[in-house]
Amino acid sequence: MNTSFFGEMLQTIAERGRALIAGRARRPAGEIRTATLVELCEELLSGRGEASGAARAREILADFQELKIGERIAFFEALAETFGCDRERLLEACAAYERDPSDAAAHKVLRAAEPRRQELIRRLNLAPGATSALVSMREQLLDALVHRDDLAPVDRDFVHLLSSWFNRGFLVLRHINWSSPAIVLEKIIRYEAVHEIHDWDDLRARIDPPDRRCYAFFHPALVDDPLIFVEVALTREMPDAISPILGNGRVPIDPGQATTAVFYSISNCQRGLTGVSFGSFLIKQVVEEISRDLPNLSTFVTLSPVPIFMEWLADERREQKSEVISHSDRLVLEYLDEPGWHQGPVKVAALKPVLGALAAHYFLNVRTDQGRPVDPVARFHLGNGARLERINLMADLSEKALAQSAGIMVNYRYVLTDIEKNHESYAEAGEVVASGAVRRMLRSEKASRALAPQS
Amino acid sequence: MNTSFFGEMLQTIAERGRALIAGRARRPAGEIRTATLVELCEELLSGRGEASGAARAREILADFQELKIGERIAFFEALAETFGCDRERLLEACAAYERDPSDAAAHKVLRAAEPRRQELIRRLNLAPGATSALVSMREQLLDALVHRDDLAPVDRDFVHLLSSWFNRGFLVLRHINWSSPAIVLEKIIRYEAVHEIHDWDDLRARIDPPDRRCYAFFHPALVDDPLIFVEVALTREMPDAISPILGNGRVPIDPGQATTAVFYSISNCQRGLTGVSFGSFLIKQVVEEISRDLPNLSTFVTLSPVPIFMEWLADERREQKSEVISHSDRLVLEYLDEPGWHQGPVKVAALKPVLGALAAHYFLNVRTDQGRPVDPVARFHLGNGARLERINLMADLSEKALAQSAGIMVNYRYVLTDIEKNHESYAEAGEVVASGAVRRMLRSEKASRALAPQS
Amino acid sequence: MNTSFFGEMLQTIAERGRALIAGRARRPAGEIRTATLVELCEELLSGRGEASGAARAREILADFQELKIGERIAFFEALAETFGCDRERLLEACAAYERDPSDAAAHKVLRAAEPRRQELIRRLNLAPGATSALVSMREQLLDALVHRDDLAPVDRDFVHLLSSWFNRGFLVLRHINWSSPAIVLEKIIRYEAVHEIHDWDDLRARIDPPDRRCYAFFHPALVDDPLIFVEVALTREMPDAISPILGNGRVPIDPGQATTAVFYSISNCQRGLTGVSFGSFLIKQVVEEISRDLPNLSTFVTLSPVPIFMEWLADERREQKSEVISHSDRLVLEYLDEPGWHQGPVKVAALKPVLGALAAHYFLNVRTDQGRPVDPVARFHLGNGARLERINLMADLSEKALAQSAGIMVNYRYVLTDIEKNHESYAEAGEVVASGAVRRMLRSEKASRALAPQS
Amino acid sequence: MNTSFFGEMLQTIAERGRALIAGRARRPAGEIRTATLVELCEELLSGRGEASGAARAREILADFQELKIGERIAFFEALAETFGCDRERLLEACAAYERDPSDAAAHKVLRAAEPRRQELIRRLNLAPGATSALVSMREQLLDALVHRDDLAPVDRDFVHLLSSWFNRGFLVLRHINWSSPAIVLEKIIRYEAVHEIHDWDDLRARIDPPDRRCYAFFHPALVDDPLIFVEVALTREMPDAISPILGNGRVPIDPGQATTAVFYSISNCQRGLTGVSFGSFLIKQVVEEISRDLPNLSTFVTLSPVPIFMEWLADERREQKSEVISHSDRLVLEYLDEPGWHQGPVKVAALKPVLGALAAHYFLNVRTDQGRPVDPVARFHLGNGARLERINLMADLSEKALAQSAGIMVNYRYVLTDIEKNHESYAEAGEVVASGAVRRMLRSEKASRALAPQS
Repeated sequence: MNTSFFGEMLQTIAERGRALIAGRARRPAGEIRTATLVELCEELLSGRGEASGAARAREILADFQELKIGERIAFFEALAETFGCDRERLLEACAAYERDPSDAAAHKVLRAAEPRRQELIRRLNLAPGATSALVSMREQLLDALVHRDDLAPVDRDFVHLLSSWFNRGFLVLRHINWSSPAIVLEKIIRYEAVHEIHDWDDLRARIDPPDRRCYAFFHPALVDDPLIFVEVALTREMPDAISPILGNGRVPIDPGQATTAVFYSISNCQRGLTGVSFGSFLIKQVVEEISRDLPNLSTFVTLSPVPIFMEWLADERREQKSEVISHSDRLVLEYLDEPGWHQGPVKVAALKPVLGALAAHYFLNVRTDQGRPVDPVARFHLGNGARLERINLMADLSEKALAQSAGIMVNYRYVLTDIEKNHESYAEAGEVVASGAVRRMLRSEKASRALAPQS
Repeated sequence: MNTSFFGEMLQTIAERGRALIAGRARRPAGEIRTATLVELCEELLSGRGEASGAARAREILADFQELKIGERIAFFEALAETFGCDRERLLEACAAYERDPSDAAAHKVLRAAEPRRQELIRRLNLAPGATSALVSMREQLLDALVHRDDLAPVDRDFVHLLSSWFNRGFLVLRHINWSSPAIVLEKIIRYEAVHEIHDWDDLRARIDPPDRRCYAFFHPALVDDPLIFVEVALTREMPDAISPILGNGRVPIDPGQATTAVFYSISNCQRGLTGVSFGSFLIKQVVEEISRDLPNLSTFVTLSPVPIFMEWLADERREQKSEVISHSDRLVLEYLDEPGWHQGPVKVAALKPVLGALAAHYFLNVRTDQGRPVDPVARFHLGNGARLERINLMADLSEKALAQSAGIMVNYRYVLTDIEKNHESYAEAGEVVASGAVRRMLRSEKASRALAPQS
Repeated sequence: MNTSFFGEMLQTIAERGRALIAGRARRPAGEIRTATLVELCEELLSGRGEASGAARAREILADFQELKIGERIAFFEALAETFGCDRERLLEACAAYERDPSDAAAHKVLRAAEPRRQELIRRLNLAPGATSALVSMREQLLDALVHRDDLAPVDRDFVHLLSSWFNRGFLVLRHINWSSPAIVLEKIIRYEAVHEIHDWDDLRARIDPPDRRCYAFFHPALVDDPLIFVEVALTREMPDAISPILGNGRVPIDPGQATTAVFYSISNCQRGLTGVSFGSFLIKQVVEEISRDLPNLSTFVTLSPVPIFMEWLADERREQKSEVISHSDRLVLEYLDEPGWHQGPVKVAALKPVLGALAAHYFLNVRTDQGRPVDPVARFHLGNGARLERINLMADLSEKALAQSAGIMVNYRYVLTDIEKNHESYAEAGEVVASGAVRRMLRSEKASRALAPQS
Repeated sequence: MNTSFFGEMLQTIAERGRALIAGRARRPAGEIRTATLVELCEELLSGRGEASGAARAREILADFQELKIGERIAFFEALAETFGCDRERLLEACAAYERDPSDAAAHKVLRAAEPRRQELIRRLNLAPGATSALVSMREQLLDALVHRDDLAPVDRDFVHLLSSWFNRGFLVLRHINWSSPAIVLEKIIRYEAVHEIHDWDDLRARIDPPDRRCYAFFHPALVDDPLIFVEVALTREMPDAISPILGNGRVPIDPGQATTAVFYSISNCQRGLTGVSFGSFLIKQVVEEISRDLPNLSTFVTLSPVPIFMEWLADERREQKSEVISHSDRLVLEYLDEPGWHQGPVKVAALKPVLGALAAHYFLNVRTDQGRPVDPVARFHLGNGARLERINLMADLSEKALAQSAGIMVNYRYVLTDIEKNHESYAEAGEVVASGAVRRMLRSEKASRALAPQS
């Protein structure tokens, strides 16, 4: 297919977006009062001067960029207070619906209940480059939200619209490699959240060798800015540690010889899109993409961190009457408090069985109030239909990993034909689908419990 | 800027879309019952099997394509009846809001009032190529709507979502020329709605010469398919007829010598997007684009049809006590009923002053119940902030134009610095901003009335 | 691979080229005397004003475009007479070489023997768009050559440089389809030399259906202009006639079901590149390209015209003592002289065995003075390593084909593993590798001769 | 213009090239004897197996990559000895020409004198990616040439063909910026030859700020590999030192405010193309490109190193009877031998007038045997038509610059309207066109000599 007409056509968005950003940077800093901004928003909404809606939207977005923190919060407050729905109108619409619960009346309720903010945000999006500006506006809103619950309604409207605009149907998967533009690669370095990328050489080692892949989702309106990306290693077997994957001096293997694709890092890039989920689509599409390319691959597996295992373990160790930690466990676990324990073979040997059993328990038995695993990474992959394939002890000896998980990493496995079934077991009953190997790590008396979720 | 990474990234959508379309075509025709389709929709909405949401959405869209007319209407009925909002839940939410009209309660009303269709349509959009399929689904809904008012709520939801997705911020302006792909040009031929394009040579005469331009808006998710386009002629003066623009054997002028850009044809392409408006943005952006390219241009003007003048005139002629048609007018106007009148110089000479005065009256004085001009093209351009510059008699002698407007065409002029002001005069008071020349065409006693809109 | 940087980079050539072409068109026609042009050439060669070499080259090429036929020939004459090599210098170099036949002396001979034209042409190529202009200059030279043998040395230099510049290493194969730009497709219509393309619908029927392919070679410096292209039909068997391939109302087959790729039309596009050969590379690369895409394909075959069979046959019929045409043949062959013979079943039935045997003889036995087949299409494909697979009678009933070949078409088959062997048999001994079926069409007494080439 | 079809078309070369490079890397190292390689070359030349010429060429190029140094030299020797011209044939051709010095006879001499190597190299270029491989083969030939004068004829043939293939008409200018692919940027870092680029941040500081530009020439057949590039700073005045341009913490200026474009670094990238000149074209085209973009620019100037000034000065100081160095100069110049002299204000103050006068002399009066300036950078820019505008003392205090030029840098200025004239003065008479300021730096008695070139 000659698809470049289409491609070229869309570059225009990129250019416009970049021009806006460049424009912003050069805008002479001036005194922009929130009040003015709110007035501009009212004008934009009123539709007066519709002819210049895009120009007005552009002005608002540019001015917002110049606000200081306090002003910004004041602006969000104004959004919360004066751009909600019209109370009188909604009360009337509700009353009308109660008298006659017809579709038409429901529609009036719907329109009356929609905060004016939503239409405001839609109109702000008329400006060139606006979508990107709105995503970063929401990022700042998230900062404000930490201490300001009253801004939550504003956030709900952002999420509603961003979810609609960043619908999977509008996203594009792209292979990231050494021929990608520096302006994109720079962001891969910056956004990598699991295993830090130290510099451009490190980046190259992850995307350039023939047995490495990186894929990202993009949205047409977000210039050069990935939404989420995944790093993949092609290997001959399921890996039980991170260092052979990230290590220096590795000799790449021929991708035609690989049997296994290892998803060893998934990073969200846009904090402003928190709550709009792409990860599940990404993994599935990457599996499809790589399979088409390399039909020899038979195993799709992650090598994932266990971010709060040590936190849970600390709580559990504090618990005097823990059912899961025996007295002897407790003694052995004290090694973890000694710096450098992971370099002492005796300590490691003693810890391994204890940590293994506890980790299996942590994944299979420990649940949130909603009956889900406490581990967020586990929730993500199990929710996507993966199964818990293997728990790897001493798999990541970086400082961060030792602190978070005592070095434990986990393989979640995606078996295409089981994804739907696994997903449903998890979604409906909270079941943690796990391999026999993982279940056998549970101590006998607890193993039975693992087969069904806790109720 | 090297924007090609971005461009290439987006080609993927095009490829996916094309693959889907190709896939559809080859799908073996089978018996797909509406019932099954509705069940699939329920499943998609239930979120059960979320892991395969995209696959399910694809299946629904593909199956919908196979439905026969009756089945399709049955499907829309199901959307209207069973995918509305939950009445009980909405009644409760209304009651709660009445008790405590808080933001949180309003939000609950909003969520309860949203028909389940909206979320369904959003999830259908997960499939590759879905946006295009949803636009054509709405086209079929419009057909059904003609006789089925009860489907209007379904249509409202389509319009709501399509308006959000086809927000100006996501559209891209493209120059269409002889280097554009045939698959796009083919659609320009097909969609041209004002002055038919007869074949590829005719098309070429409109887009290839140096003094001709064509621009279209595209949306990333609509593969190769323009949303709206405009054809522009560069000239040395404001044209008073269409044939010098479309005529054969024309010698192109050097665009650097042109002073005037004439928008002589604007066509919407996607019937499924009826009610989602782009025209105003298109004209403004094309004016910007051409001005940047050709700084010598000083006049931006349309050469527009007058689609219902003859319809109005027929009504007026039927009216025995018409205030605008005098007895002698009546006699002269009878020439219009004679075939070939436009080729008789005597008849034309007699008709011209009468038609001119009546046309001025038609534009300046005749109004809808809402106080707007009856002419839809006038409403469009005046609403965009143009002014009525000139009424051209005997300007289009094609059969269609003679039947619609007795050959009259109109120039609307866009003066960049007046657009906002004109728009506001029109928007607020329905004022028809017109040149002195047009106003002078009114017969004296009526001329005064033209200065202010009818109230 | 993200190869778009490279792609974009190269678009610049296209833009430059188009700008030049546009520039040329608008150049005010003036009196340019050949003499001036020759002076400009001398200046360009002298290297004086090297700083503006590109500008001078551009001027020369633009001026040349304006020359009238007589002036053009005068210019070529000047190239022949005054831009040859320096006789004195060459004589000296020859003498020096004879005294001391060293490498250094040979190099001096080489430099002295190179006509100044070669460097002139290289310098003309400094101008943007020059390569294309030089190709069309050579086209005009070919016209002049018909009556002017004395211009042959000029042509030799063009061929020498064009062969070097259009080296296979610089050519690019492109898939031509309905997404290709109109400006390219237009040329496919224009250049098709075997089976005329009547209009855009006809073109679409050849490149858009899933079981049709079109590929062309391009050169970076020839904007939008293919060098050679081939049209391919995917079928379930080797075709024995053209009408099922080009016929209307055809139902396309699923390309995945096809077993055979039929090359039914190969057209050279640039007359100015006559003598620079691409065809052999094109076929081989298309075979590779299609095979990768459609691994089910097992047969690669042409459906080729036989352009001079009737010419040969007419000569042979004139020959009273022909060894190949018996008396009874002669009588039957007279049917060919009757218009509409191909619609008479009796005549056709009588002609078939005679034509078959004669065609077999024509291909297998009749040779040029160099011991090659007289049929130019046969020479091309046999030289590429194909074998003569089948002679199809009554395969093309168009007026042109009846006149050229009495309706005969031929399948040449490319068996990848035999190409080299076939090519060598042909190249070394002139052997026509043919299937048993073709050889069996020879009448017995002649069949033996067909096994070995004539000596 | 929609030029993307063209662009995409050409990406194919890039892909092919990359595939070849990837292919090479993975080729299992084997014993490839030069002899075999030479045999393969003979086969390729013989045209036997023409059908597989491209495959054979590919094989030869891949095998060559595997050769060890000794083998490689042996291969070049074979090219020199056995792939020259045919002595007998050339002698005959010479004799024939002497008898009848016709064009036809000259052509025979030309063909006989062309070493077989030339055709061999042309045929090697049939392989995908071959051009790049041939450029690097020539790079290795240059290494061998250092000690092996007998290989010079081979080099001449490489230069001849590469000059033809890398004709200006085939080159493309590209803007290099932060959106360019990493694979290209990496090479900018590697090839920068004047002011080293230390890392990616340093690179970014040179190509990303709005007042910085970088342009490179590319050739379609050299994948991702620039031929030559220039770095440009936009400033408000002609700079007299490098550190304000390369310094950290610089605040970029608005390019619209810039009056001056400073070419502060020009680097050739392909050692294998030594002797094929692009620099002059590059500067002129970049001047055009930037002027179009930024019409406010009025001054185009370099800030250039003076690579061998200190070498010349050392020679001059060794010369006891130097006419240019007075006794007092000699004493002052001894400061240069003290490390850190440039940090001592007294020493610097004493050195400045002496160095200034000597530098003026060095540029204006000192000449090679051919009557050209001894400074190679001066020869380059003066040959391009620039004039020597200013000599800047203490302009580059890096270790390298102190060693090469005692910190001196030079501005060469390109005045578009004078380029041609300057070039001619230089080309014909070796005149160094210099500003009055530079000439005034000469000591009086020498100043007069500077007005005319030495004879």
